[in-house]
Parts: sequence; C-alpha cells; structure tokens
Amino acid sequence: MTVSIDPAVAASLRGFEVPEKLGFGSVMAPAMFRARCQDGVWSGGELVPYAPLTLDPAAKVLHYAQSCFEGMKAYRTADGIALFRPDRNARRMAYSAERLCMPAVPESLFMEGVTTVTAYCANLVPANSGESLYLRPFLIGTQPDLSVSASTSYEFYVIASPSEAYHAGNMRVWVEREDARAAVGGTGDAKVGGNYAASLQSIARLKKRGFDQSLWLNPGNRHTVDELSGMNFFAVMDGELHTPALNGAILEGVTRDSLLTLARQLGYTVHERPIDIDDLLQLVSSGTCSEAFACGTAAIVSPISVMGDGDAVYELSAAPGPVAERLRAALLDIQEGRAEDPFGWMVPVEITDLD
Amino acid sequence: MTVSIDPAVAASLRGFEVPEKLGFGSVMAPAMFRARCQDGVWSGGELVPYAPLTLDPAAKVLHYAQSCFEGMKAYRTADGIALFRPDRNARRMAYSAERLCMPAVPESLFMEGVTTVTAYCANLVPANSGESLYLRPFLIGTQPDLSVSASTSYEFYVIASPSEAYHAGNMRVWVEREDARAAVGGTGDAKVGGNYAASLQSIARLKKRGFDQSLWLNPGNRHTVDELSGMNFFAVMDGELHTPALNGAILEGVTRDSLLTLARQLGYTVHERPIDIDDLLQLVSSGTCSEAFACGTAAIVSPISVMGDGDAVYELSAAPGPVAERLRAALLDIQEGRAEDPFGWMVPVEITDLD
Repeated sequence: MTVSIDPAVAASLRGFEVPEKLGFGSVMAPAMFRARCQDGVWSGGELVPYAPLTLDPAAKVLHYAQSCFEGMKAYRTADGIALFRPDRNARRMAYSAERLCMPAVPESLFMEGVTTVTAYCANLVPANSGESLYLRPFLIGTQPDLSVSASTSYEFYVIASPSEAYHAGNMRVWVEREDARAAVGGTGDAKVGGNYAASLQSIARLKKRGFDQSLWLNPGNRHTVDELSGMNFFAVMDGELHTPALNGAILEGVTRDSLLTLARQLGYTVHERPIDIDDLLQLVSSGTCSEAFACGTAAIVSPISVMGDGDAVYELSAAPGPVAERLRAALLDIQEGRAEDPFGWMVPVEITDLD
Repeated sequence: MTVSIDPAVAASLRGFEVPEKLGFGSVMAPAMFRARCQDGVWSGGELVPYAPLTLDPAAKVLHYAQSCFEGMKAYRTADGIALFRPDRNARRMAYSAERLCMPAVPESLFMEGVTTVTAYCANLVPANSGESLYLRPFLIGTQPDLSVSASTSYEFYVIASPSEAYHAGNMRVWVEREDARAAVGGTGDAKVGGNYAASLQSIARLKKRGFDQSLWLNPGNRHTVDELSGMNFFAVMDGELHTPALNGAILEGVTRDSLLTLARQLGYTVHERPIDIDDLLQLVSSGTCSEAFACGTAAIVSPISVMGDGDAVYELSAAPGPVAERLRAALLDIQEGRAEDPFGWMVPVEITDLD
C-alpha cells in the first residue's frame, strides 16, 4: 500500500464522537479517501480529513450527472472488522463507470480506498447488530467544460458513515405504473445518479399516500417487476423464493446475489424469472404469495407488509415473514461473524492504531 | 433589483481578456450569480467572482444527480445586448426542477440572475455573427445526506461563457438503436443531468465510427425519432417541415418553438407528428426528404449531411440545404437585431458600467 496519509487525519479521528442516534448516511466519518484521474492516469490515493470538495462551477458532474457510486459496509465481528464482498462492489463500480464513459477505478485502488478508510475509522464501526460503517465510494467527472462529452478529469472518493440499517422492515411499497427509474437501453443496471434522480418524484408521491418505497416495473414491458429504488425484490410463494431475473434494467445487487446463494444452501428452491405484477398481486390476494421483501446493502433484508396499486391495497399474509427473517439472520450471522463464512465473503481489515 | 454585488467582481471583469479562440462552453466569464434555498426559502441573489464551489462530499447532487440546468444566450445587437426568450427558459427550468422534486427557481430570481450576469459581462458578448454569451443557469441539491430523498438545501447559479455556436453544421448523425437517453415515464422532457450522462456512451461509440451526434429513438416504441442530445430534429420533405411531436420523452426546445413560429410566418407548411425512422430513411434514400437539421440554443440551426444506421449511410441530397439556411438566417437576424422582432422575443439588458 502506498496511500499517503494526511497528518491531520489522526487528530480529526481522535476528536470525533459518534452521536447516539445514527440514522442512515447522515453522520459522516471525519476521514475520507481521495484519488484523481487525469486523461486516464490515476494518482496515488490519499487519506485526508473529511472536508468540502472544491469543484469548478462548470464541472461535468454538476451539469451532466457524470457520476457513479457504490454502497458497502464494514462490520464489527468477533475477530475485529471486516468488509463484505468488496470485490463485487469494485467490479460493479467499474461497470457503472464504463456505462457513463468514465475510467474504471482500478480494483487495487478501490480496495485501497475502502480498506484504508475502514482501517482508520475502525472505532466508528458500531457494535449493535444491524448497524455498520456504511462506505460510499463515488466517482465524479470534474472537467470544467459545458460541451456534452466525457470529462477528461475525475475524482474518486470513499466517504463513510456509521449507520443503522436503511429500512427497519414492514415496508409499504407502491406499484409505480407511471414513472420509470431507467430506460431499456438506459442506465438501470449501473449504479449512477440519474436513476435515483428520476425516482424522487415517485417517492414523494407515494409518501403522501402513506407508502415507503416504489416498486418499479420494467420500462420496456411495463408489466414485470424490476426492483425498488436501491433494493432488489423477492417474493415467497408456496415456500419457494422468486426474484426478477436480471434484464439490463435491474441493478445486480450484492445482497441479492448473496441471498440467492444462502437460500439455496438453506434448501430453498429459488426462481430467477420475470414476475408479472398483476400475477403477483393476485397471488398475494389469494395468499399463495405470503411474503415479500426487499434487499440491499443499506437495507439488508426488509420485509414488505403491504403492496399498494392505485386504490387497491394488498397485504402480505405472513408479513414480516419467517423466510425474510431466516435469510436476514443467516446473512447477518455471517456478516457479524457469528456464523461460518463458507463462501469466503468476509474480508478482514487490519485496524490502524492511531497512537 | 436587490442583487448584492461583490466588490471584487469589477476587478475580476476588468482583468479578464477574452481569448481569440472561443470554442463552446470552455471559456468561462469571471463573474457568476448565486442564490441559495433552504427548506423552501430563497436567499437574495449575489453576483460574485467566478470561483470553485465548495460542496460537502455527501451532497445529493454528487450521488443522486439532483440537478437541472438551462442553456440560453445573450446576443450583441445594434442597440446593445439582449436575451432571447428568457421567460421560456425560466419556465422550463421550473418544470425540470419539479420533475426532480427540487424547488422551482422563482421566475423573478431567474431573470435577476441571467440579467445581472449579462449586464456585468456585456463586454464579453462576442461581436461575430453566430457567437454569443452562452448563459448556463443551474440548480443543484446540496444537502449532505446519503438517503435517497430530495435535498433540503439547494444552490442556484448562473455562469456564462463567450462561445461560438456548438455545431458548425454538416453533421453526421447516427441512428441509435440500442441505447436510450431517457425512459417513457422518465426525465426526457426535463433538462436534467441524467439524460446527458446516459447519452455519453452512444456519443463515444459513434465518434469512433466517424459520426457527430446520436439520433435518439423513442424509448417506448423504439421506432419514432425523438431528438438529438440537446437538440431537436427537423426534416424537410417536399418543401414542408416535419418535426417530432412532443411526447413526454422529448425536450421542448426554445429554438424548436421559435423555428416553428418563424417557418409558419415564412409560409412553410409545418407538421408536428411522430416520425418513423424507417420511413424517414427511405424518404432520404428516395430524395423526398432532401434536408434535415438539428436545432437548439447552443447549436442554433445545424444542417445534417448524413444519417448512419448500422452499416448503411444515407446522404441528404440538398445538404446543408436552403431551408435550414433560410431559417437559421431568419432566426439569427432577429437574435442579432438585423430584423424586426415581431414576436417580442428579444429582451434588452441594460449594460452595467463598471467604472
């Protein structure tokens, strides 16, 4: 590792007190990792105190949304601190970057970033189950130029936030029949800002109706379920697990992949297939679909209690549901070091001693 | 007007020399307008020296692309300096903001911003025909918080750039059959960053094939023409003008609207209708469609010489074409004050004397 450490980092960290109430993504750790890329050439990484960025007002990211990001977590385990499947995030971020004509952050630099931040912020990793140090790597185009073209300069950051899980569960989701978060041939399978900006109007609308999250339909057929905003979708039917098959408009969640693996190991039959929304709602009505849940790095596993569609409301009969609970527990047991890690998912981080 | 003027602005402007080679959007004027909005309450506007913004690394705009913008121009006329239809940009920016759950910039504040920047930067408005002071109002969500929700704080800026026209004409456009810039139910009719980010991959691909711009098809039917990136599309068939009807996925261009008005006044028959791409290419082949052009604030009117589709290349027989040339001249004559302004499009700006 050749990360340069700003001497001010240690003082920032020593002077930082983690507030009692964490929430999600609002308490920021006082150190961050930074690297720059100019004309395809990456600088070395630096760990610096968390501080405002200075960006030219004409920077591409501010006008043309040339930005992508990742969400991942560092957990406190019996043995210390560990990251969960960081290689998957590194690869997905490279994919997202490529979709927006940005240079991929080299996997070694990405790993250096998330590892260094975690190593220095180890004291900020919460100890309560379900809490963690949420890591947010992100890449932005910084060239000051108003023409619609890829930036020639980029900045990569890793910031961190000691956080609770994003959703506590018992979510009320809303079938979004009008808006779309991404297009066929668009950026739905990349983790880029524009998908989230497009989703805000739907979220604002459904909150007024007493719901928590949009259930997005495929923008091509407007009839099969894609995902929730930042979370993948699962339904339990007759004790078997069903989740939308990847189709180019769905973000391939690391938690989704992990749950598929875990579920198979636990003996569940798992189906990755297109799920028609009208079929699904009918199966919820009849009780065949007794459970549904969302999953994601931030949300872990969040049971769905109600699905709203227009004026109709469909209640999941087994909510929050034993399958969701079992999978959530199985995943957290690995992440928090209470269970064996048969898949080699946990990557321990050597804690940096600040003294 | 109650704009606060930073005393350093005058010195910045006096010390600034406009380079000989302008390009588009790369030379930035040394003054900018700024206003802030916190929890729905707007501050007064300020004119300050052009300088880097400071943004929290967790600012919503950097992660969730909560940003929208406008493009407009100040022209040098015989009588002084004037803006072209700024009320249309103000209203469109309010629409774009609403789509992303951002507070609309009040029209009076928007006008204050573009007028103040123009008044102080009057010396930077180029004198050559086709050149202008390009104005870029933009609005960004600045709240430092990683949850996917609308920002509680915003910053509105107007920056300016003495510029040439964006495209010189004789463009080679590429029929984009794979990617989409926006979805049905997405943000295609709003001027938001995500649409542009999604378009970059297509542009990079077609440049390698010797083309200049993507011709975007409707994301719903994948068969009718929507627009180019940041420009609307017109075709001339048997001497009549055809442009895609607005459909929710097309940005309603101010230049588009102005050309429709001007064309009717000049006696052209004008059709706003869905234009099937295969029909269009056949009509280009047969010579019935002799001309096509793109239009936009930055591009003005840019003739299209070639349309590429897969391995096929279709040449526009009359390119650059008399209709495009006539409309471009008629529009620029109004914008640059050589012709009457029967529609009341030009809004004069009183120049601020720096001494």
